[in-house]
Amino acid sequence: MNFNRIAIIGVGLIGGSFALALKKKGFKGTIIGIGRKKENIIKAKDLGVIDEFSTEPAEGVKDADLILLATPVGQFSEIVEGIKQNIKKGAIVTDVGSVKAEVIKELKKLMPEGVSFVGAHPIAGKECSGVNAASPDLFNNTRCIITPDENTDKTALEKVFELWNTLGAKTVLMSPDEHDAIFAAVSHLPHVLAYVLINAIMDLNENILPHGGRGLRDMTRIALSPPELWRDICHYNKEHILKSLDRFLSSITHIKKLIENSDWDNLEKEFQKAKAGRQILESDKYKI
Amino acid sequence: MNFNRIAIIGVGLIGGSFALALKKKGFKGTIIGIGRKKENIIKAKDLGVIDEFSTEPAEGVKDADLILLATPVGQFSEIVEGIKQNIKKGAIVTDVGSVKAEVIKELKKLMPEGVSFVGAHPIAGKECSGVNAASPDLFNNTRCIITPDENTDKTALEKVFELWNTLGAKTVLMSPDEHDAIFAAVSHLPHVLAYVLINAIMDLNENILPHGGRGLRDMTRIALSPPELWRDICHYNKEHILKSLDRFLSSITHIKKLIENSDWDNLEKEFQKAKAGRQILESDKYKI
Repeated sequence: MNFNRIAIIGVGLIGGSFALALKKKGFKGTIIGIGRKKENIIKAKDLGVIDEFSTEPAEGVKDADLILLATPVGQFSEIVEGIKQNIKKGAIVTDVGSVKAEVIKELKKLMPEGVSFVGAHPIAGKECSGVNAASPDLFNNTRCIITPDENTDKTALEKVFELWNTLGAKTVLMSPDEHDAIFAAVSHLPHVLAYVLINAIMDLNENILPHGGRGLRDMTRIALSPPELWRDICHYNKEHILKSLDRFLSSITHIKKLIENSDWDNLEKEFQKAKAGRQILESDKYKI
Repeated sequence: MNFNRIAIIGVGLIGGSFALALKKKGFKGTIIGIGRKKENIIKAKDLGVIDEFSTEPAEGVKDADLILLATPVGQFSEIVEGIKQNIKKGAIVTDVGSVKAEVIKELKKLMPEGVSFVGAHPIAGKECSGVNAASPDLFNNTRCIITPDENTDKTALEKVFELWNTLGAKTVLMSPDEHDAIFAAVSHLPHVLAYVLINAIMDLNENILPHGGRGLRDMTRIALSPPELWRDICHYNKEHILKSLDRFLSSITHIKKLIENSDWDNLEKEFQKAKAGRQILESDKYKI
C-alpha cells in the first residue's frame, strides 16, 4: 500500500472497519484514530482497531499521508478547518460520506496547497453503529463510489482507487452530482421513508407497532440509523432528496387514487411492475 | 388433535406449511390438498406435504371436518359458494387471510346450517411463495390472530385456537375490525409503500435500482410478494388502508416541509422519535 501513516477521524462502524480491513489486508504502517469522545477512542485502541489515538484532530493528523474523514458529514468542514494547518504536504484527504457535491465544494476550498482531496462513498453500513460493530470484512464485495471532479489530482485519485480495491471493494467512478442524484433515490429517500413510516404508525396508534411482522421489521430496520447522520445527509443533498420525495409522492398519490376508485386491475399492474423491478436485484448479477 | 380429515384449499407457502406443521406435531389423520393447478398439487403430494389431492374443491372437501382456505382472499367467496353443498355438518371452515371484516361478512352468509366459520390470520410469510417454500416451522413462535365475532360458535373457536397453539403459534384474540385497522397500518401500508418505492425509483431513472445497498433491498423485499394477493387485500381492507395512507401522507408532507425549510433541528427530532419507536421492536419482549 502507498501509505505509511493513516489518520482516521471518527472511529465508528465505518472508520473502525476501514482500520480493521487495512490490517487484514497487510497494511504495515501506523493507524492513528482520532475521536471527540475519549472513552470511545480508547476502546478502539484496546480492541486493537487502531495503533495510536488522539482526541485532538490538529495534533493527530500530523505526519499522516492519508487522512480519512469518517464522522457524520456535517462535521467535515469544521474538522478540516481545524486540521488544515497541520496536514503534511503531499498528503491525501478522503472521506466515506454518503453525500458528495456540496460537501466536496466546501472541502476543496479548505484544502491547503499541495494537499489533494478525493471523495469516496463505500456502500456499506449496518443499522448498528460504533466501533463495536466494526468488521474487517465490511467492505468485501461491496461497491465503493469514487467521485472525482475535473480538478482532482490524478495520482491521488489512483491511490484512493487502489486502496479501496485492496480492501476488497468494487470501485466505481462517478461525478459528485451523479452520485448524489442516484443515492438520493436509492438510499436517502428509503431512509427518510423508514423514519416516516414508524412515526405514521405510532401516530395512528402508539401501541400497535409490535404487531408488525418480519416485513415491517425489515422495512424499517434502517430507521435504527443515527438521526444526526441522516439529518446531515438531508441538509447536504436537499435538492435531490426533495426531487426524489416529489416523485415518490406522485407515485403514492396515483396508487391512492386507484384504491379510492376501486381500480383493482390497474392496482395489480402497478404491483406487478414493482415486483418485476425488485426481482432484478435478486439476479446473480446484482445480488449483494 | 380434534380432526380426522383436513382439507387445505390452496397449497402454497402458507397452506403447505400448515400441512407440514400438522404432520410434525403428530397429526395422524388425512390431509387432502386442493388446488386449481394440477402440476402444483401433484408436486405437493410428491413432496409428501399432503396425503391426497384434488383439483375439484367440491369433491375434495367431502368428509373433511376442518377446511382451511389458503388461497388469496379474493377467491374465498367463490370457493365457498362452490363447496358449500358438500361441507359435512359439524365441520369447521377457517382461513389464513390477511384481511378479515369484509371477508368474514361475505363468508358467513354462505355457510350452510351446522357449519362454523372461524377467521384466523397467522402473522407468518416470506416474500417467496409456492409449496417449495413451505416449512413445518413457519408458524413457530409467530403470532396467529383469531378473529371471532358475537356469533362465532364457541366450541369451533376453541378448536381453532387449540389447533394453532399446537402448531407452535402464539394465539391472540381480536375482533375482525380491530384486526383490519391494526394490520392496515403495520402490514398493508408497508407492502403498498414497498411497491410504490420501487416504482418511484424506476420512474426517476430506470437503471439506478441496482445501486441500492442492503437498506433498500431489505426495505423492498416485500415488493416480491404476490401482486394478486395484495390487490385483494387492498380491495377488502380499502377504508382502513386509505386511512393509513392518509396518515402516512400527512407525516411525509410534514417531513418534506422541514427539509424545504432547512429546519434541520426539527428534522433530527422526527428521526430520533422514529428511531426510539423502532428500537422497541428490538427489545427481547417483541423480538421475532
